[in-house]
Amino acid sequence: MPTTQLEPAAVALLDQHVRQSEPWFRGSLRTLVEHPTVSPGGGHEVEIRRGAEAARDLIRALGGQADLLETGGTPAVFGGFPNPQARARVLIYNHLDVQPADLDTWTKGEPFRLLIEEHPERQFIYRGRGSTDDKGPALSALAAAAFAAAQKIPIDIRFLWETEEEVGSPHFDAALKGVRERGFVPDGVIVSDTVWPSASSPAMSYALRGSLQGILRLRTAFKEAHSGMAGGVARNPIRELCLLVAAIQGAAFWKAGVIPPEPAELEDFMASGFDAEYFRQSYGLDKIETHVPLEMMLRVWARPTFEVHGLAGGYMGPGLKTAVPKEAELKVSFRLVHDQNPVQIMDELRRFVHGFNPDVELIATGQLQPYMGQLSGPLSAAVRAGMTRAFGKPPVAVREGGSIGAVPMMAATLGVPIAFLPLSLPEHGYHAPDECFDWLQAAFGMRAFVHTFAALAHSSPR
Amino acid sequence: MPTTQLEPAAVALLDQHVRQSEPWFRGSLRTLVEHPTVSPGGGHEVEIRRGAEAARDLIRALGGQADLLETGGTPAVFGGFPNPQARARVLIYNHLDVQPADLDTWTKGEPFRLLIEEHPERQFIYRGRGSTDDKGPALSALAAAAFAAAQKIPIDIRFLWETEEEVGSPHFDAALKGVRERGFVPDGVIVSDTVWPSASSPAMSYALRGSLQGILRLRTAFKEAHSGMAGGVARNPIRELCLLVAAIQGAAFWKAGVIPPEPAELEDFMASGFDAEYFRQSYGLDKIETHVPLEMMLRVWARPTFEVHGLAGGYMGPGLKTAVPKEAELKVSFRLVHDQNPVQIMDELRRFVHGFNPDVELIATGQLQPYMGQLSGPLSAAVRAGMTRAFGKPPVAVREGGSIGAVPMMAATLGVPIAFLPLSLPEHGYHAPDECFDWLQAAFGMRAFVHTFAALAHSSPR
Repeated sequence: MPTTQLEPAAVALLDQHVRQSEPWFRGSLRTLVEHPTVSPGGGHEVEIRRGAEAARDLIRALGGQADLLETGGTPAVFGGFPNPQARARVLIYNHLDVQPADLDTWTKGEPFRLLIEEHPERQFIYRGRGSTDDKGPALSALAAAAFAAAQKIPIDIRFLWETEEEVGSPHFDAALKGVRERGFVPDGVIVSDTVWPSASSPAMSYALRGSLQGILRLRTAFKEAHSGMAGGVARNPIRELCLLVAAIQGAAFWKAGVIPPEPAELEDFMASGFDAEYFRQSYGLDKIETHVPLEMMLRVWARPTFEVHGLAGGYMGPGLKTAVPKEAELKVSFRLVHDQNPVQIMDELRRFVHGFNPDVELIATGQLQPYMGQLSGPLSAAVRAGMTRAFGKPPVAVREGGSIGAVPMMAATLGVPIAFLPLSLPEHGYHAPDECFDWLQAAFGMRAFVHTFAALAHSSPR
Repeated sequence: MPTTQLEPAAVALLDQHVRQSEPWFRGSLRTLVEHPTVSPGGGHEVEIRRGAEAARDLIRALGGQADLLETGGTPAVFGGFPNPQARARVLIYNHLDVQPADLDTWTKGEPFRLLIEEHPERQFIYRGRGSTDDKGPALSALAAAAFAAAQKIPIDIRFLWETEEEVGSPHFDAALKGVRERGFVPDGVIVSDTVWPSASSPAMSYALRGSLQGILRLRTAFKEAHSGMAGGVARNPIRELCLLVAAIQGAAFWKAGVIPPEPAELEDFMASGFDAEYFRQSYGLDKIETHVPLEMMLRVWARPTFEVHGLAGGYMGPGLKTAVPKEAELKVSFRLVHDQNPVQIMDELRRFVHGFNPDVELIATGQLQPYMGQLSGPLSAAVRAGMTRAFGKPPVAVREGGSIGAVPMMAATLGVPIAFLPLSLPEHGYHAPDECFDWLQAAFGMRAFVHTFAALAHSSPR
């Protein structure tokens, strides 16, 4: 009867493998980061395809199989280490696409050049767009899978690396179809694309917020008008959109249907190591809505939000131009929590906007289902065991404020358990300037994946 | 005893002079328009000075005297036709600076190239930034003054052409000081920088709105934050500024102290030829606040407004980037009517903003006094007589929705009557793309000025 743990000899080998992997890791991360695989806004399709090809080649270079899956959008990479003797089959989800990056806002290096800094605790900081979201974690899983394959751990590990996560995974159904057509049916999915609340304790997520995104557009004139000559009769589209924002902020439709967390969840939150000041500093926040830690966690993990991201229209230059603009456009989004239905809330938003100002056009640009998973079952147990072995303490159970459109789709389509093995930290700066990953998270992440694979292989019913 | 009217022989000469002036007018307007004398936003000081020098040279070329007045800002032009035998001394105010112009928004020609179109009614349309606001009217007055001087009409006509009107005339005191130092003390001022309500009837303005301009700035973070990871705790500066706009819109402080027009004024408004549909089309408006003509006039001429002109901060690109911005800035202004005090309302705005959201910074960028004049007295009578002779019907009495900072300053400093002899039409597009002037307004404007000069010379007590 095999144990659920690696033999001591294998653990020693793993340590050696991880220590020797740093040059490979930095080289591979450089390859991935230096492809500007920016999905939002479009226009980078060629770079995304080249980035996917480079990622495919990294899997092949470690002895794995890998191919691009054509999806109708930009391609996904499907690859891994097929194993006919496997006692468990696991699909690991990461994404290769990244947020846009404005060079002007980066204070350290450039977004699409990997900058490596030595660090007293973390050994190396790897800085570049996508380093933590989500290219670094993908490479940790890849290194671990290659080791597991070389050690003949009886597990079949595959990767599904999509390239449309940052735009809501519009063609992810086609990617899942491609996986099925290639004959792979996983027993479970591991997602490595979320964030620990704190560097002091590993964490397993079990819930994601969903989101709803749209553009509110109002045109009132054919050209801008003199605010003296026509002001008072001309309708000011920016002012009217501001009034609409205030009305939406006060409205109930997007705050309804929220189920408060169970007392046990609140206990987990309190035990998560969440630190208000660390959170504030990690995300570069100055003034915040509340400084009460539990209230902060609830606001990010368990409650919906309404955000305004930008406005187009009107005069943006220096000083002031006192014209009444002819049109304006607000970019808005909501984060939604489980049991809130994005489709229904989009309908209610449409009705609300129409009732408040019938001339405002609402252009829906995307919606992602929220996700609520569970922490029981053999897959979660294996990830918990793997993280505990690697990081020396059990992971805390937390929710996640972000959204991953692919997760609820995998839950619905594959019908298998999903577990989260996150490696990112708040200080890594998801979506922010100076985004980074670090070697400590990469290295212990490799160990956590290997221990998880071992636990899965040995605990699996097959 | 001289009559208040030109002799028939002089009228015939005037007709001939005006008809022969079109080539001079288009050439001179081309010279002025093709100097991009953009004052808002700064950075065009060299072009403004060159434009002022070119304007000075146009006066000199017609036999007038002219010099630049250094003011501490960009220079003003002071010139004219000194006349020791004058029975009246008049100062004519125009401005040489213009609003910015975005080439992309122009559908006809380029802002700083004079485009000339033939027109069945107006004979020629002169298109370019500044053509109607205020370079064309300045040239009509100049042509008229040169004719009056050549005809030895006993009047001393001087021009004060400033170059900072579009930024609130910050150094206009120094310009007035320069005029005084050169020994010129006018009996009255004629301002030619307002707009008729309709092409069908000449108009005399007697009131200007004032204005108050500022920037509302809010910074909540050191960098933008992921709306999933931090949304709910991060304070969204755009959303908060939208709430502030809604609060200001509903507040009383800027709507207080408005004295409704007298019944006689309302009768003048109704008789002004104001046409709702012409107004809407002339200003390129699609959806408007009201279609009731009197209500439209009241809203533009006799009531304050609150406008939002633009927002900086957040994501402006295509599509959506779901980050919480770190800072945002709204550009706002108010138009104020007479008996409202801009200094006091700025104080109240500051208190209101601080009370609503103490983290919002208010940067005051300018304020202009409203102006309320009168239509009685010899100067107004002369302008009325001059316009009546030229245009064949008496001018209607209207207020003006725009602001001219120099006018209340001249009223306070010079202590002489001020009258308006406007030549611009709504369809000319003050501050708008495709701004234009036309030969009919220029030519009849020349006649109106000459008849006004004659009336002034003959009615004056000197």
